[in-house]
Amino acid sequence: MADQYVQSGEDGRPKEIPAIRWDEPPEGPVLVLLDQTRLPAEEVELVCTDAPVLVEAIRSLAVRGAPLLGIAGAYGVALAAARGFDVDDAAEALAGARPTAVNLAVGVRRAQAAYRAELARSGDAERAAAAALGAARALHEEDAEASARMAARGLALLDELLPGGGHRVLTHCNTGALVSGGEGTAFAVALAAHRAGQLRRLWVDETRPLLQGARLTAYEAARNGMAYTLLTDNAAGSLFAAGEVDAVLIGADRIAADGSVANKVGSYPLAVLARYHHVPFIVVAPLTTVDLETADGASIEVEQRPGFEVTEIAAPQVPVAGGEPGGGIPVAPLGTQAYNPAFDVTPPELVTAIVTEEGVVSPVTGEALAELCARSRQVTQTF
Amino acid sequence: MADQYVQSGEDGRPKEIPAIRWDEPPEGPVLVLLDQTRLPAEEVELVCTDAPVLVEAIRSLAVRGAPLLGIAGAYGVALAAARGFDVDDAAEALAGARPTAVNLAVGVRRAQAAYRAELARSGDAERAAAAALGAARALHEEDAEASARMAARGLALLDELLPGGGHRVLTHCNTGALVSGGEGTAFAVALAAHRAGQLRRLWVDETRPLLQGARLTAYEAARNGMAYTLLTDNAAGSLFAAGEVDAVLIGADRIAADGSVANKVGSYPLAVLARYHHVPFIVVAPLTTVDLETADGASIEVEQRPGFEVTEIAAPQVPVAGGEPGGGIPVAPLGTQAYNPAFDVTPPELVTAIVTEEGVVSPVTGEALAELCARSRQVTQTF
Repeated sequence: MADQYVQSGEDGRPKEIPAIRWDEPPEGPVLVLLDQTRLPAEEVELVCTDAPVLVEAIRSLAVRGAPLLGIAGAYGVALAAARGFDVDDAAEALAGARPTAVNLAVGVRRAQAAYRAELARSGDAERAAAAALGAARALHEEDAEASARMAARGLALLDELLPGGGHRVLTHCNTGALVSGGEGTAFAVALAAHRAGQLRRLWVDETRPLLQGARLTAYEAARNGMAYTLLTDNAAGSLFAAGEVDAVLIGADRIAADGSVANKVGSYPLAVLARYHHVPFIVVAPLTTVDLETADGASIEVEQRPGFEVTEIAAPQVPVAGGEPGGGIPVAPLGTQAYNPAFDVTPPELVTAIVTEEGVVSPVTGEALAELCARSRQVTQTF
Repeated sequence: MADQYVQSGEDGRPKEIPAIRWDEPPEGPVLVLLDQTRLPAEEVELVCTDAPVLVEAIRSLAVRGAPLLGIAGAYGVALAAARGFDVDDAAEALAGARPTAVNLAVGVRRAQAAYRAELARSGDAERAAAAALGAARALHEEDAEASARMAARGLALLDELLPGGGHRVLTHCNTGALVSGGEGTAFAVALAAHRAGQLRRLWVDETRPLLQGARLTAYEAARNGMAYTLLTDNAAGSLFAAGEVDAVLIGADRIAADGSVANKVGSYPLAVLARYHHVPFIVVAPLTTVDLETADGASIEVEQRPGFEVTEIAAPQVPVAGGEPGGGIPVAPLGTQAYNPAFDVTPPELVTAIVTEEGVVSPVTGEALAELCARSRQVTQTF
């Protein structure tokens, strides 16, 4: 069962709420999520006491964003273990909750592997649960570190590509602290530019249908005091035409072995616009997003979401119900069918660079990507 | 003062309500508009008794679409004349109600010229008012005829460009009977294809921020029994990439002398996508949309609309208030600034063809456009 409550600081203003946290109240361990479907209107926490609640939270996008999904998946396995549920069942359900972000399954498998290894070694379920939690916590910390390194590398790349400074950056969807153990991916780069006095403007695509840009990125930009402007996704073309965009920065949900990038629907049109206007199109993602098992863009499974996300308006006060129409305000005639892919795929030839915590791949080729992954694994083994 | 009422037929189902009609109840002449901000949830008529109410209806988009704005402007002048208001004042206010659609000012000037000419000739204000009304009615009829001819020419062009038939057409914004004295511009072509059994699918961009695609085009497509699918504007890229779009059909709000096309924001990104994917990008508009006084795309004044259209969601039940924030549901943090151009400009080199009632211009050049306009004026003079 999920339980919800609002956190407020002593001054009455809501205090900074982490996107995800593990808690151990007397009733037993829980995973606490900041419910992202309610932002920016309300800062409400969603308490998960077992894996099915977390699966539902993942499906309804209460928790979302590729790196954070990996962390959530790992904690979900730890939660099932700590509460004595069947860990393999929980892992299966969690890994399949959404198909496109590879990080989710990677996080789940990592905690599951730690659990199994400890169980095989000691035969002690409690120690195995602790091992799963340890794996989740390690992933969480590593992700925060990876954020910081991506931000530094991304900012260096921006400065190299745009030596004049005063960057005007366009971004899509939400890629900040709400998707990460740290400050995020693409957003973390923009934030680093802001802190360095190098961000002139963050153009925020509203990101239909679920408005992650308007609701979440604008919320994070405002909290950080950045100069930002919101726009409808289809107004980006006018900005490019007017020469108002120096670079596009986006995240990724899965990067195939050939360098194809699956990301929030609307990323591909930006890549085509960026190419047409000779503007760098930069993808920022941790190496866990690279999936060498997926050969190319055509092999990436793109999640199709329910049509009511388009035919109805789901404002923060009217969160999207998990699979049933209703709850939102209808904006199209009854019976209207909608095409609603959650992601699109940008081919490597349209991507200027992929920025990871271990290095920058540019130009984007399967060889360069494989080399970076191999190097990174070697580094991990050596230390 | 505006008055609103809902029309229902005898079977309880709402009967077909024209987008605009002139009426002469005992209380005096009125211009009756189908309030497009309330569709598809409600079919409500808005009764204009003087020009200021019509100006407000134009600004709030209760009446919209380039050709219909021309008709509305002409009737507005006739209304001021029939009610004994200052005709020149009314004409000034109406012509300036929205800056981008050239048809509005053209329609206003035509009725005003008829009024002035008759007043100069006979000195009789009543006869002058009748002349203004005659000019508005003539424009209304001509527009209906122009629709039919554009539809036929557009369908012939589609059949020529796509000899296989079974067209899958992507459209943006609303360009049907709701914007015209007849069946519209781009939508009329799709409708003609549908009637000829040649339309496999109409892809309907929802058209943020005001959702004219979801609310109005889907409504018209459903009423006409067309096979249509709604999508967020940013999902069009995935359709192009999947080879699911055979042609793009859009309308225009102003076409400059060089062939640059101002149309609803989001048209330009579609033009860039269409070029990248070698898909025809076809503009359908009556010759009144061509403005030879505007030299090029850079000279077109693009209306900037209030940010709250983006930072708030205005569902049909929550119509956009005319200039004041509020009324909508906030989806972005308070204080968020938005970039909200109503239109964008597509350069002629990205337009495959411009379909008018008098002929098709392809390739699109200033010379070809000027020639068509000159030929058309000659035709008008000859008959």
